[in-house]
Amino acid sequence: MKEHYFDDLKTGDRFKSEPLNVTVKEVVEFAHKFDPQMFHLSRKRAERSIFKGLIASGWHTAAMSMRLFVRTLNFTEGAIGLGVDELRWPNTVRPGDVLMVETKIVKMRPSKSRPGHGIIRLRNVTTNHRGEVVQTMLASAMVPKRGKQEAER
Amino acid sequence: MKEHYFDDLKTGDRFKSEPLNVTVKEVVEFAHKFDPQMFHLSRKRAERSIFKGLIASGWHTAAMSMRLFVRTLNFTEGAIGLGVDELRWPNTVRPGDVLMVETKIVKMRPSKSRPGHGIIRLRNVTTNHRGEVVQTMLASAMVPKRGKQEAER
Repeated sequence: MKEHYFDDLKTGDRFKSEPLNVTVKEVVEFAHKFDPQMFHLSRKRAERSIFKGLIASGWHTAAMSMRLFVRTLNFTEGAIGLGVDELRWPNTVRPGDVLMVETKIVKMRPSKSRPGHGIIRLRNVTTNHRGEVVQTMLASAMVPKRGKQEAER
Repeated sequence: MKEHYFDDLKTGDRFKSEPLNVTVKEVVEFAHKFDPQMFHLSRKRAERSIFKGLIASGWHTAAMSMRLFVRTLNFTEGAIGLGVDELRWPNTVRPGDVLMVETKIVKMRPSKSRPGHGIIRLRNVTTNHRGEVVQTMLASAMVPKRGKQEAER
């Protein structure tokens, strides 16, 4: 994917990620490490839950969405997350789903404290292969401008 | 840890998690899978970054905090995350840090659609071993009442 700096973006820009397959193995592995609840841990026990089957942790969906976002925007020197608002999981994520993230740049401003950086406000929407929305969020991130080294020296 | 149902909680209740050690291996592993940016991936490259050393992805901090929260509250039949607001990372998390989560129940109400469940609004604050706050968030979760099976049949 093309590398990006703050300077390359403008309000209203949209980006689509590549697809990502959700596997049983990864859903269960993530759950064991970070969200050990029965509807994330075991197919059998998940079938008796309210979800009638294994679902991914919302934090796993968030992490997979981050992966897709990072690879799509590909900020040369990294995007530093400042905060996230209105993180929602309107539909469940299940093994076999294929996820995709669409990013929209909603606001941009220069950083006051770091003249070599800018702050972007973005909306990320994660959908599955049936087009159902599985996650929405707003986030702010600090990203470097071109020639940042000079500006902050 | 003691098991909990909705009925066991009241507004204002506070819970403290056990401690969790942050290791280089896990920071780098998470980054490779979910947040492949240089300040999370490699000690060497991270030293040349704005952070002057390896830091954990904010989503890794969120996932570790979930683990601590789940084990502390230990909802017998699981807590279903409805959404998260004002997720912030005011200080970095680095290998060697020891994290702890404090949960405060800020609001409780019965679920309208599911009489066997209640909705809790909670604030989770994650701190390191120096008492610095590394993450704050507000979340809503649906948790079962005692005898839910009967109520929803």
